[in-house]
This record gives sequence, C-alpha cells and structure tokens, in this order.
Amino acid sequence: MKTVGIVVEYNPLHNGHVLHYERSKALTGADAVVAVMSGPFLQRGEPAIASKRARAEMALRMGADLVIELPVAYAVQPAEWFAHGAVALLAGTGVVDSLCFGSESGTLEQLLPLARLLARETEQLQAEMANRLQQGDNFPAAYAAAAAAVFAQGEHDAESLRQMLARPNNSLGLHYLIALERLKASIKPYTIPRESAQYHDQVPGSASIASATAIRRLILTEGLQAVSPYIPEYTLDILEREMENGQAPMHWERFRQPLLQTLLTRGPQQLETLHEVTEGLEFRIRRQLPRLAEPTVEALLDALKTKRYTRTKLQRMLVHVMLNHGKARMSRSALAEGPGYLRILGFSSTGRTLLKRMKKTASLPVVMKPSAFEHPQLDLDLRAAAVYAAGCPQPLLGQLYSDYLLPPVTI
Amino acid sequence: MKTVGIVVEYNPLHNGHVLHYERSKALTGADAVVAVMSGPFLQRGEPAIASKRARAEMALRMGADLVIELPVAYAVQPAEWFAHGAVALLAGTGVVDSLCFGSESGTLEQLLPLARLLARETEQLQAEMANRLQQGDNFPAAYAAAAAAVFAQGEHDAESLRQMLARPNNSLGLHYLIALERLKASIKPYTIPRESAQYHDQVPGSASIASATAIRRLILTEGLQAVSPYIPEYTLDILEREMENGQAPMHWERFRQPLLQTLLTRGPQQLETLHEVTEGLEFRIRRQLPRLAEPTVEALLDALKTKRYTRTKLQRMLVHVMLNHGKARMSRSALAEGPGYLRILGFSSTGRTLLKRMKKTASLPVVMKPSAFEHPQLDLDLRAAAVYAAGCPQPLLGQLYSDYLLPPVTI
Repeated sequence: MKTVGIVVEYNPLHNGHVLHYERSKALTGADAVVAVMSGPFLQRGEPAIASKRARAEMALRMGADLVIELPVAYAVQPAEWFAHGAVALLAGTGVVDSLCFGSESGTLEQLLPLARLLARETEQLQAEMANRLQQGDNFPAAYAAAAAAVFAQGEHDAESLRQMLARPNNSLGLHYLIALERLKASIKPYTIPRESAQYHDQVPGSASIASATAIRRLILTEGLQAVSPYIPEYTLDILEREMENGQAPMHWERFRQPLLQTLLTRGPQQLETLHEVTEGLEFRIRRQLPRLAEPTVEALLDALKTKRYTRTKLQRMLVHVMLNHGKARMSRSALAEGPGYLRILGFSSTGRTLLKRMKKTASLPVVMKPSAFEHPQLDLDLRAAAVYAAGCPQPLLGQLYSDYLLPPVTI
Repeated sequence: MKTVGIVVEYNPLHNGHVLHYERSKALTGADAVVAVMSGPFLQRGEPAIASKRARAEMALRMGADLVIELPVAYAVQPAEWFAHGAVALLAGTGVVDSLCFGSESGTLEQLLPLARLLARETEQLQAEMANRLQQGDNFPAAYAAAAAAVFAQGEHDAESLRQMLARPNNSLGLHYLIALERLKASIKPYTIPRESAQYHDQVPGSASIASATAIRRLILTEGLQAVSPYIPEYTLDILEREMENGQAPMHWERFRQPLLQTLLTRGPQQLETLHEVTEGLEFRIRRQLPRLAEPTVEALLDALKTKRYTRTKLQRMLVHVMLNHGKARMSRSALAEGPGYLRILGFSSTGRTLLKRMKKTASLPVVMKPSAFEHPQLDLDLRAAAVYAAGCPQPLLGQLYSDYLLPPVTI
C-alpha cells in the first residue's frame, strides 16, 4: 500500500486543502494518506479555530486515513523544528513512503541541492547567520540571506535564491527536505505549486479558494455561512456543531485574561526562563504593558512588534509564556531528540490497516490511549489541550482533560 | 481633632457598616474617621465585588474622612497578619487615637487580658498550637483552643473561652489588640457588639440589615434592585454606575480562566514555591484537577476542601497562586516588617486636614501618587489591581494600570 505523508494544520480545512490532498495522492500514486497535524496551538503562534478532535474529523471526512498529532513542543516552533518534528513522525510510522508539500516554487530543482548542503549546517552558514542577526535581521530573513550567500554562484543568483526562500512555503519545504536528509528517512519528497499570496490574503480571492486566514476572519466578522463557498460541507457541519456547543470559534482574544495575568504577575527574571523570551524581550514586555492602548492580545502584539521581532515570533513567544514552556524543555538538544511517540488523533478503515502494519514497522510507540502512556512531551500536550479547553466560550463539564480520556476519532 | 480608626472591606458598603461607623464615632467621640480598607482581594480570599476606588468612594460618601489601602500582602492573610498590617497603618498615621471594631462578645473584658498574654507568644502557646495542628485542627480552631488552654483557669473556663474565640469577629478583634500591644501603639481600643450570624447568612435577615455575603449573592442572582433595602443610596448609585461600565459585579468565577491556566501549566514543584501552598496541597491540586465536575473555581474549591483546609484558607491560597505571591515575599520575617507606606485611596475635606497634620506625624511615607513611589509591597498592589482589572466584564482602555495613574478619590 503506497502511502503519502502530508503536514497540516487545517485551521480550518478548506477547498485549497482538499485540492492539495487530491493532487498529493495523484502525484505520488498513493493508496493511503497519513496527515501529521498540529494540536491546539499552531506554527504561527495562534490557537486553532477549533479543537484538534474537530479538525482531525475534518481530515478524515476529506479522506485522510491516519491523523497523527504533532506535539506542541514542535508545533509552535520556527520552520526548522516544526519540519523536523513532522518529518520524524512520518518516518517513525515506517509506512510512509512519500511526502508531498505545497511550495511557491512548485519544484524541488533548487530546493533539493540546497537542502543537502544546509543539512550539514556548515560553519560558513552559521557565521553568515550570526552576521545577519547582528545587523538586526529577523530569523527567517537572516536564514534566507545566509543560505543564499553560502549556496549561490554570484550576486544575481544569490538575490534570486534569497527571494525564493523568502516565500513561506518554500522555506518550510526546504526544512522538510533538510529534515529528511538529517533523519536519513527513506521517504521520497514531492512538491505541488501553491500561491503564497493566498495565505496572507485578508479577503477571499476568486472562485472557491480562499486562504485559511481570510476564512477565519470572515467567520469571526460575518459568521459561518459567509465562508460556505470556500470550505467543504463537512467542515461547515463540524464547525457549526462546535460553535453550537460553545467550543468554537477560538482565537487569541479568548486567552486575553490568562495571558495578561501571566505577564502582569511574573517579573522579567521569571519571564526570561521561558522559551522564546530572548534578547531582553522580558524587559520590553514590562515597559510596554502599562502603555497598552487597550487590554487585548492585539494591542500587546502591536506594542511589542519591531522590525526585528516578527509578529509570528512574538505570537509563538506568547504561546510559550501562556503554556509555561521553560527554556530547558525547549532547548535545541531536547528538540533534537525528536518526538517520543505517535499520538493517533483519528483513523479511517484504511487507517486501521496502517495501524496494524505499524505494530511491526513503527520506530516510535503508538499512543491510542494517552492516559496509559507517559512522556514529558505528552505532558506538554495535555497542558496545551487543557488550557485551550479552558478558553472555550462554554468549557464543557469535565472537558479540560477530555483530550486524555477520549479514544481517537474514527469514521 | 479626635480621630477613630476602623478596618473595613466594604464589599459592598451596607446599612450595617453605616451603623458601625456611626456608633464608632459616638462611642469614641471622634471628629474624624480613618478607614483602612483592603484593595481588590479580601481577607477571606475573594475578589471584591467592585474596585477599591468605587469602594473608597462609598466610604467617603458615608462620611469617612481618609481611606488608606491595606496592602495585598496583609489584606489576604489570616487574622494575625491582616490585623497586624491594619493596626500598623493606623498607628503609622500618627493622627489616630482610637480603634473601634465590631465583635460578637461586644466587650473587651476577656479579650484585653488575653491579648496582653498572647502578644508575647509564649512557648506554651506555640507547643499547644503545634499539638492541635498535628491532630488535624485547622489554624483558627487550633489557635482558639491553644489560647484558651494557656489562658483559662480550669476546664469550664477554657471551653467558654474557646467558644468565644471561635466567633470570627472576636478572633479578629483579639488580633487587633495583640497588634496594638506588639506595636506599643498609643491607640485606645473600643468594641461594638455585632451578631456574627449575619455575616454567614445567605438570605437577608429582618429589617434593613443584611450581611455582605447575602447582599452579594442577591446582586448576582437577582440584580442590584433586590438589595436596595439593605444598602445606602450612594452604594446603589456607585454599584449601578460600575455595572453599567462593565466594572462590576466581580466574583471568583470571573478569574476562572487565569486561575485554571496557572494551575494547569505549573507542576507541583513550581506551585510549592507560592504562599499558602503548604503541606502537599500542590499534589492535592494535581490529583484533583482532572476530576473536577466542571471547570469552575467553585468546583475546584469543592474538590480541594477537607476538614483541615477551610474554604477561606483555600481561597486565600488561590489568590496567592493567581497573583504569583512567592513564599519568600510573604514570609513571617517579611510581614513582620510591617507595611512600608500609607497609600491614600481617598479623602474628604476633613481628610485633607488630617493629611496636612500627617506631614509631621506620620511614621510611614504617605503615597498620593503611586507612580512616584517605589516599594516591593506596592509592586504587589499594582499586580493585584491589574489582574483584577483584567477580569472585569469590560476591561476599560488603559485600565490595567489606572490604579497607578489616577489620584485619590475626593468628595
């Protein structure tokens, strides 16, 4: 059974995702699809619009066969660690033979040789990085520029490479390829062209494809019906049910009070112990808090933002602060050990067959019942799910720990 | 100018408080009244129904002349430290010559000699205390029994003393007297009889007097108009305004999310560093959290309660956890230093005269502009006010730090 892996957030699952899913299957000739999906908090440092169970259900309804949770320790990270965690999970199943991701460039021609070089992380690359960061570049910009400088043949080539890597999906794709190299995974990479512009669109574009960002914004401002042209019917049904149950739509402002309370009651010394609170941001937080235009997460992000700190970096920092993620737990050496388990969020009947095969092939423990498994990363996932649940419009009775008691979603 | 001191919470100010105020003036023959008032969090470990500014305004409208804030480091403490902080502030003004408090016994006859003995905190008392606590008594019960055992002449006398001290206002009064002894304050104590039963009444009693607890419950369940027989018109007006502005009514459930987030994301080791998290309560919290009937503060208190831990002790612990009050800052030696300043929350025209006199008489700095003064206890007051403000139904623009920017209330 040929099996393709995809890495997703489905926030929420929309028509563009369905297209990617179908093309991935067609391009790789796969019979089954394994999706690695982020839990309650996402790569750009935002809470997902609906719970991971609801989003896993969407994935299964679309046709995915197995949904594996990317632990929060990897899910809320820069491209490098996000990709490393996701690829390690796909490789860990022992049943995935290809990986298909969207990229603006739509080809691996430039990315593959670059990944082979960068996987070794030469001293030259590190020196270039340090140099750019010192000049005040933010991390993604510094990485793109350093990689281009190290790899390119001449000035013109370097600039075109730098521009290519400045596109978010090219950059993420590069890191999937680097992770495949480093993990020596026997998984064949594929890419499908996608327009990065869609991602940042605030207003739906033409036809039936709109970016997830635009869709979330529409849901929050105009309600669920407004996005029906852009999402499959099952996404609509599932979101409708979650909203009726007071479990969605979730967004940053629902965490305003715990986030402000944490920042207000912890001095710079305590904040500095947390992941991503770096380079004096603890003092910047202290200085900016009393000057907030209003007590909202949005106002806080505005107040903290500088050229050096992207909104994404700041949002991720706020997630780590809110979840009390200490620096030691999130250190490079801790993350380099990779995810410690395959947490199954849901599976189809084909997924059940994959799970049977995985009893022999998986190099990581398969976790169907989280309450019967112990791992420090799983503790963090539990925290994240409980804090997320506590932020719901109507937290359900006994819901805080439901993540650890309910079996995977099946359809 | 004869000046009487009173210690209040005004949660909210009701007809019973007005009666106490008038009797205090009459009994002491005072021309002016100084009220020491708790800030946003109260002695029994609860958020006040309205902000300290609103409550200071009620006090001034009633006729109080000067309202001084009891720092949160003393306000959310057992009777011993609460009384010590309050009496130290009254003594620190240098203008207060009497203190009048309500007590169930209505006389100082038994309390005064007891206070003189207990102020020395003999080894015998400490041994008796340790003994009772080890037998599983909670702190107030152990103290009452130990004090009775040390002081009483014979079995019968001990039992009647123990019963007398079991009444909350007698116990608090005893600690005011002990504090006066220890601080060698030249302030003459008076007491006025009050019925303790009223305090715990859940339903308003006869006539126009109802307990603050009953009044708060009525406001939350039936609205403000339901309590108009029990509160002065200005309390009604001020509460109405605060509710219209989305600043009241405040109660524990408004802090559900930050409290749960704090407990969910901090392991036992981190919780144990906080004040009042003692005797393994950090493990009890960890065990009980996943078993909550619903994600509410009420359910949490129910789950944590045992014979040994009174609801009050647990509520205070939750305040300290939410405000991140470390054990070191709240240690006996830190508290024994006393409050470091007189924070003026409001004053009348007579209060202005008192403030002028205090320029010569006060033994503590008088703080009219908190932003121009630095003290670790004031930092804690700032935190408390900001966390309180963030929990309001509609946190106002720039309100989080308004406590530090607005001048005292005047009428």
